[in-house]
Amino acid sequence: MSIQILMKPFEHLRNNIEKHVQFSDSEFEILSGFFKQKKINKKEFLLQYGEISRLEGFVTQGLLKIYTIDYEGKDHTIYFADSDWWVGDIGSFTNQTPANLFIEAIEDSEILYISFEDKEKLFQELPKVEELFRRMGQFRLIALQQRLIDHLSKTADTRYEEFITKYPQIANRLTNLHIASYLGISHEFLSKIRRKRTHHK
Amino acid sequence: MSIQILMKPFEHLRNNIEKHVQFSDSEFEILSGFFKQKKINKKEFLLQYGEISRLEGFVTQGLLKIYTIDYEGKDHTIYFADSDWWVGDIGSFTNQTPANLFIEAIEDSEILYISFEDKEKLFQELPKVEELFRRMGQFRLIALQQRLIDHLSKTADTRYEEFITKYPQIANRLTNLHIASYLGISHEFLSKIRRKRTHHK
Repeated sequence: MSIQILMKPFEHLRNNIEKHVQFSDSEFEILSGFFKQKKINKKEFLLQYGEISRLEGFVTQGLLKIYTIDYEGKDHTIYFADSDWWVGDIGSFTNQTPANLFIEAIEDSEILYISFEDKEKLFQELPKVEELFRRMGQFRLIALQQRLIDHLSKTADTRYEEFITKYPQIANRLTNLHIASYLGISHEFLSKIRRKRTHHK
Repeated sequence: MSIQILMKPFEHLRNNIEKHVQFSDSEFEILSGFFKQKKINKKEFLLQYGEISRLEGFVTQGLLKIYTIDYEGKDHTIYFADSDWWVGDIGSFTNQTPANLFIEAIEDSEILYISFEDKEKLFQELPKVEELFRRMGQFRLIALQQRLIDHLSKTADTRYEEFITKYPQIANRLTNLHIASYLGISHEFLSKIRRKRTHHK
């Protein structure tokens, strides 16, 4: 985390994508030429339900919340995007259809982003990014499948323990309401889990 | 469905992948050379929890259930794979790590499959499949994200209605227990939803 904050945004991006595929300096120059920088202030939206997602973003600073709202007006967080995470509504972006998610900054944030049109051009200009996005897609599929499995088959207590263990650097920056929304439980039930936990220590 | 059953398995595969990317006859010949056929009888497993997934399959006939089992021994269905669906544990296959899913045939089934090693060779021999798997990955991500959103934000009644409307050809072949496992509710609660529905007609 502290190392990432010191990195320049494009170094940060290179570091992230080279976990999947290596690029030469000239290849990375082509790729990075398609990305632009953007700031999103706390409480601002990068995407709202019903809009068409025009961009795919890579978080270089801050923290965003990706969520949906149910028929009762309650929000359900799909995931939090800390720095080094990609952010977007894959369905809306890929098919250029209305989003069924909200993306909101919960801290002042900065992203690098690529537009839908530029991503298409990038695939033409540098076919090697096919492998990159194929591998990144696998990575996201694995994470999303695990999120669904956890939600279907684990208790809220276990999911809470695993969340704070797996993402301590995120958990510390969230309110109880944020965490309850991610775990799919009420604020009151989360307080109960926390009290029980303190008691057992 | 009826058309697909009349198709030969490899025609079926070509039909499926060309929804994403077009291949010439000679390209498809290279691709299909890496796939083998396999039968899985009803109640047999294609993958069990803890095993390493060695193959990625494409269903040409039958129906399979992909599920996890919780700490109480209750099963939770992630999805059903009818003919024209791909089947596998993406995490276990990609990283060659132990599976956290079971894949079981609930009808006598037939698949075409590619092994982990052959898939790596296929990417070398026919780089165009990078685009294919990139696009198929997007497609799966969209479906999985929607599944998670539905589960987090919709009532069981709504999810039941949407399931039987979206997949009538699957719903007809499933028991109440199968459907309850997919919806994440008890058998009894599903019966209650069904009675209420009949009553309202």
